[in-house]
This record gives sequence, structure tokens and C-alpha cells, in this order.
Amino acid sequence: MPYFLKIFISLFNVPTKKEDRDFYKAIKVITGRRPFNLSLYRLAMKHSSAAYTSTRGLKESNERLEYLGDSILGMIVAEFLFTRFPFKEEGFLTEIRSKIVNRESLNEVSKKIGINDLIQFHQASKSLSPKSIYGDSLEALIGAVYLDKGFAPCRQFIVKKIINAHFDVEDLIHTITNHKSRIIEWAQKENRELAFEILEINQENKNKQFVAQIFIDGAGQEKGYGFSKKKAEQDAARTTLEKLGIS
Amino acid sequence: MPYFLKIFISLFNVPTKKEDRDFYKAIKVITGRRPFNLSLYRLAMKHSSAAYTSTRGLKESNERLEYLGDSILGMIVAEFLFTRFPFKEEGFLTEIRSKIVNRESLNEVSKKIGINDLIQFHQASKSLSPKSIYGDSLEALIGAVYLDKGFAPCRQFIVKKIINAHFDVEDLIHTITNHKSRIIEWAQKENRELAFEILEINQENKNKQFVAQIFIDGAGQEKGYGFSKKKAEQDAARTTLEKLGIS
Repeated sequence: MPYFLKIFISLFNVPTKKEDRDFYKAIKVITGRRPFNLSLYRLAMKHSSAAYTSTRGLKESNERLEYLGDSILGMIVAEFLFTRFPFKEEGFLTEIRSKIVNRESLNEVSKKIGINDLIQFHQASKSLSPKSIYGDSLEALIGAVYLDKGFAPCRQFIVKKIINAHFDVEDLIHTITNHKSRIIEWAQKENRELAFEILEINQENKNKQFVAQIFIDGAGQEKGYGFSKKKAEQDAARTTLEKLGIS
Repeated sequence: MPYFLKIFISLFNVPTKKEDRDFYKAIKVITGRRPFNLSLYRLAMKHSSAAYTSTRGLKESNERLEYLGDSILGMIVAEFLFTRFPFKEEGFLTEIRSKIVNRESLNEVSKKIGINDLIQFHQASKSLSPKSIYGDSLEALIGAVYLDKGFAPCRQFIVKKIINAHFDVEDLIHTITNHKSRIIEWAQKENRELAFEILEINQENKNKQFVAQIFIDGAGQEKGYGFSKKKAEQDAARTTLEKLGIS
């Protein structure tokens, strides 16, 4: 169906039943657009714990929409950061993205925009995964907006209503972790002797590649690789932190 | 710039220098579309090991485009599988997707469509990460197509030239792993005694939640959770396989 026709129809598409109309309004407020196919949004709000009542024998829950919405959100946030920070490297972009799309952030946003009032789930399931229900439903909602409205409106929904409304990107930058300084802090606190060593330099023509290793109390830890000393050290610090389970 | 204008200009946009023209033609064959901004594609083919010659002091390589292309590819493949398999669950879709977007597959595709002839990289870098250069460049190319041509043409490029041309989705389904049967096979081969037990059923109203545990030679292994016995067992098998490092 052409998009202008969808818009035209959706003007007269307001449901007549009170219950449906309330849901329609809630979705309109949350997404900023008139929903066209309301059943998509209903499905998005149906957690798998509430899905056994399906008459078709098929399990109907928001899991598939969540899978779709998750990948859309990841892509739009990636593109947003790519254009927002034209001179930042890929590692930086990846780290900021993970601060936006992680479970806790999405749960927070989900509650703030009022999705928690719309979700259908079964109480018992709260004990299994109490936290992820809200974030999952937000992703499912994104999937529904994409299927109902298309790529550009869905992108606008994510950028306006999720990223710009709920994340201060400048703030996120400041909390970005510097692996090397983190491991130095840790070593000072724990009174361990920490050393960074550059093991190898592969040089051909103008390009140098570095291999760094971290030593704690003289014992060799993980190695790191990079096209600069700094990068190789950061890489080594990151993997060592991971291996030692320091967060 | 409006899209029709881009198309119009790109008809007369063929570069005059022989070297550029060859590159232009190669990109046109690979992507199926006339490139508009050729420098985007040049950047996509520039591996970070060949990036130190930048005159601006800024490191110019395909890493940022790769970051963008990676997320776009993930999303398009997710959407492709979502519509291709309307009755399959999210776990199935995730597993098939990972079979398409993993490094080895992308490296293969990258070589098949001829990207390897266009990539600029420094020989020494082959020793550090010999394999990923091709797959990374394919992702960077996807990022370039997205920025140059927009979402819909980029999706068409991915679906036609990557998924449909190089993956037999029916084939992929058959290689999808069944965790439970894998762990049973493993136990038979290793002569271990394997048992699945359902530990708990949380029942309220119509919904049941199951907790399964695996026992190997009587010793309790990982637990699994799910809304059916089968799912809980699959989940337990998956986590146990992971913990034991069986691949």
C-alpha cells in the first residue's frame, strides 16, 4: 500500500472500542505517530509468558519482533553516532553504542516512556528474568514501528523519542572507560606491581605494528595488538581486565 | 540532493582517468549500481594497515565504515529472515543469521565477489589478522553503499548480491544445531552417562515454567529455563556444552 494512502486511512482509523482507543492513543503518544496496524503493537506488548492462550496453536509473543527491533535499534544508533562523531574511531563509537543499547538503559527508557503499563506478561516470569521484560518490549515496539511505518519513520522514532529524549551523549563520553588508566588504578589499590612492555614491532615500509604485554608482579598477562604503542597497550589492558574479571 | 538528481548525474559521472574508471566499473559490477561518490568506496577498500599516509594527520581507514556496515548487514539479514520464516522462533532466526554474518562466511563472499582485488592493505598486517581483512572490507563496502545510495538500494545490494547469490538458506537450516542431540552424541562418544531432569515447574494459571538440569555421570551440570520442557532442556544442553567447551 502506498505510504500516502496509509497516512490518509490512518486519519480515520481510530478504533471504536474504548479499550482499543486507549491503546491506540498510548501508542500514538509513545511513538509520535498514528499506528496503522494496531495488532502489531499488541503483539509487541505480549511477553512470551503471556503467550500460551493463542487459539492457532502457534506461540504468539513479542520474541520475533524483539529480534527484529534489536537489530534495527543497533543499526540506527550506529548510524546516529557515525554521523554525530565524524572524527571518532570505531572503538569509541562501539563503546558509546553499548552504553545506549544495553539492557539496563533500555529498561530505564522503557519505563520512562510508559511501556511498562502496556506490557502483558505473566507474574511468575518476573522471578526468572525480572529486568529484561521492559527492554525486550521496547525492542519489540521498534520492530512493530518498522513493520507498520517503514524505515524512515522508525529511524525518526528512535532518534527523537529514544536517543535524543533519554540520553545525553556528551555525558556518555565522559564515562567511557580508559582501559589503561583503569588497570593502573586497580594495581595501585591492590598494591600490585604493574608494567607495560612492548614486545615486538613489525616494521615494513612506513607501517609499524606493535605487540604489548602487561606484567603484574612480574608475571606475564595478556598481549595486545595495535598500529600504535598506545593502542597495543589499551588492547592488552582491556583483555587483561577481562581475564582477571575486574569490572 | 534528491535521489532522481543523483541518478541523473551519475549517468555522466564516469571518471575520466583510466585508474578511476577501472575502479568505478569494478564497484558497479560488485554492487549492481553506479557509484555516485567514488571516494567513499575508495575509503571502504582501505584497510587500517594502509592508512598511515593520510595528509590530514587523521587516520583514514575503513574502520568506521566497517562499524556502520556491520550493523546494517546485521539488520538487513535479520529482516530478511524475519519475513522469510514467518513461523520460526527467534532462536532459530538468530542462529541462521550468525551462520550468514560470521567472519568466515563474509571472507568467502568477499573473495567470491572480487573485493580482495580492490583492497589496499599492508602486507605485514596479514600476519596479525590474515582472515578478517576481506570480511571487514565487505562490511565497509556495505557502509559505503548505504551512505552513497541510501537504505533501500543498500538493502537490495545485500539481499540480491550477498544473501541470495551466496547463501542457500535451506542448506543453512539443515546445519542448524540441536543442542540436546549434540550433547547426547557427545556423551555416547565419550562413554559418559547423561541424564536430563526437570527440577521445578512454576505453575500459575495456565502458564508453566520449567527448569531443567543436566547430569553427567551423576554430577549436576548447568540449568536451563523455558516455558516448555523441551526448551528448558535445550537451554540446559546449550549452557552445558558451552561450559564444557564442546563445540
